[in-house]
Amino acid sequence: MSAPVPAAPIDTDALVIGAGPVGLFQAFQLGLLGLSVQVVDVLPQAGGQCVALYADKPIYDIPGVPVCTGRELTERLLRQTAPFQPGLHFGHEVQTLRPLDDGRFEIGTGAGPQFRARSVVIAAGVGAFTPRRIKVAGLEAHEQRQVFHHPDDLTPFVGQRVLVVGGDEAALQRAAALAEHPRSPGVTLLHRRDQFSAEAELLARIAALRTNGRLQVCIGQITAAHAQSDRLEAVTVLNAQGVEAQQPLDVLIVCQGLSPRLGPLADWGLALERKLLPVDVATFETAWPGVYAVGDINTYPGKKKLIVCGFHEATLAAHAARDRLRPQERGPLLYTTSSALLQRRLGLTG
Amino acid sequence: MSAPVPAAPIDTDALVIGAGPVGLFQAFQLGLLGLSVQVVDVLPQAGGQCVALYADKPIYDIPGVPVCTGRELTERLLRQTAPFQPGLHFGHEVQTLRPLDDGRFEIGTGAGPQFRARSVVIAAGVGAFTPRRIKVAGLEAHEQRQVFHHPDDLTPFVGQRVLVVGGDEAALQRAAALAEHPRSPGVTLLHRRDQFSAEAELLARIAALRTNGRLQVCIGQITAAHAQSDRLEAVTVLNAQGVEAQQPLDVLIVCQGLSPRLGPLADWGLALERKLLPVDVATFETAWPGVYAVGDINTYPGKKKLIVCGFHEATLAAHAARDRLRPQERGPLLYTTSSALLQRRLGLTG
Repeated sequence: MSAPVPAAPIDTDALVIGAGPVGLFQAFQLGLLGLSVQVVDVLPQAGGQCVALYADKPIYDIPGVPVCTGRELTERLLRQTAPFQPGLHFGHEVQTLRPLDDGRFEIGTGAGPQFRARSVVIAAGVGAFTPRRIKVAGLEAHEQRQVFHHPDDLTPFVGQRVLVVGGDEAALQRAAALAEHPRSPGVTLLHRRDQFSAEAELLARIAALRTNGRLQVCIGQITAAHAQSDRLEAVTVLNAQGVEAQQPLDVLIVCQGLSPRLGPLADWGLALERKLLPVDVATFETAWPGVYAVGDINTYPGKKKLIVCGFHEATLAAHAARDRLRPQERGPLLYTTSSALLQRRLGLTG
Repeated sequence: MSAPVPAAPIDTDALVIGAGPVGLFQAFQLGLLGLSVQVVDVLPQAGGQCVALYADKPIYDIPGVPVCTGRELTERLLRQTAPFQPGLHFGHEVQTLRPLDDGRFEIGTGAGPQFRARSVVIAAGVGAFTPRRIKVAGLEAHEQRQVFHHPDDLTPFVGQRVLVVGGDEAALQRAAALAEHPRSPGVTLLHRRDQFSAEAELLARIAALRTNGRLQVCIGQITAAHAQSDRLEAVTVLNAQGVEAQQPLDVLIVCQGLSPRLGPLADWGLALERKLLPVDVATFETAWPGVYAVGDINTYPGKKKLIVCGFHEATLAAHAARDRLRPQERGPLLYTTSSALLQRRLGLTG
């Protein structure tokens, strides 16, 4: 008869917001310095924008890694961080960050896990990624039933009349895969401009599907949605010639990219400069003692939004957090090559 | 009849002093930004102290590289830098750095190559490494004939009476290899303290050689050298009991480690703080415009002598150098994942 008891908050030395490359390396550096770590990310997997936006595209400027994809970099960093067994919480957005009287911070994720952390590192990149939506009244009500954003699994849509919206690889890949299916009743690809961006092979597949009539390409944009008894039946498309026409459909797949939004972070009371967190470059601490910001979310003179810079920032932030929480452990810098303590923490010795 | 004509100085956008991991990544970042690069190092190979001091020991804190040796890291960085074909000049010590009236710098390496550079990045680590010598009068005259420091090739010493000085892996490895040789007339290992540092397997080899009499171990230090007709005949060893004895020898192998010394850099006129170069953390520029310092040689608030920090410093220094030399090329940050220009420079496209 009583209300469900909320799970106890997770106690941790450090909470990292964001599991992109910089957030993962942040967890590594904190673990190496002997702090316990929890990591939260709004995305369903690690890797941040590297995986959400360009998982399979090569990156060439990670030092010591002549080439790797965003996915590979993420896998390497997860492997590197594994000895410290950080708690990884995916699919949860940090909504509240509140200083407590005892010097700790209370972190809430809505209905998800709650944390009490002695330090917080914001590695939130450009914010929480959400798919760019089509701003037309009446579409939102059909999300997850007939309107989908960047869906991974296309099998539920086979045999249905699909309209794919977008002009880059994400849209073209899905349009081609569906149009090539033998049971496809026809797929329409809609894009604002007659300019598509993808690798030559995919563009050739699209051209072939247009030629054999399995794929219609339409240049224009959706201006209205038409539903009947809770079911989306068609959309109105305004084409480049200024002519409107109705396009009947069963499924609308929207691939207009992911749009970062700052999200709840703007409401925590931390000073922002053009939606970025100013930091002290010796510690990467924000205006709040014990709260650090690393990677694309921070700003300081000379800042470059590069992963390699975030790795350095995470390193200094970890040292600053350790020095603040455990001043007695300050001392000469230890090296993983020679320090028995660090090697023990890395799980290399008993 | 005329004096030899000195080779013309090499003209370059950027000269990097030091080919350790940070100097190599510096060359990469400069190349990526379209600047021509020359790299000079006093050591006979790339890798700096990573290779000179712990080539085969694992490093665990390079982001995205869960484990690699100093040698592997160096090979990876050389491969990454290769597309920009930097000039690599090993075995040359930069002795002079002088600003010219036209804004360039003249860099001299004694009898080696000379450079005219529009910018200079000092990535000199802790300075130029030189072997630690035994400070006893009369030994220096026999260097390279009977006295050797960290020799790689032991074959010339086979069959001779060898005294090896040192207590770590470098000394023990050489003492064991020579003592195990069937033609060895006996090897003596001399160390200040009765404490040796090496892996268990090597310590066991040493113990076995002591037991079977092929290796003598002597605790003490050399206090005098005895030569006859230009030939080193013996040294006096003062042992732990305060007793002096003469030790006859043909060859003296000294493995007391490498000692960094600041070298000529101290005389260039750049401001130093405790033998380090203070830099602006937005650009990693020293007090001299156009001269940057990255890696272990620089100092700034919060500085940690870690490779990962040097990678960041090299990145910002490269951008600062490019912005200074080619202000017209400033613009939005380009990414290797998406920029056709950077991919062309990387040699990925025609």
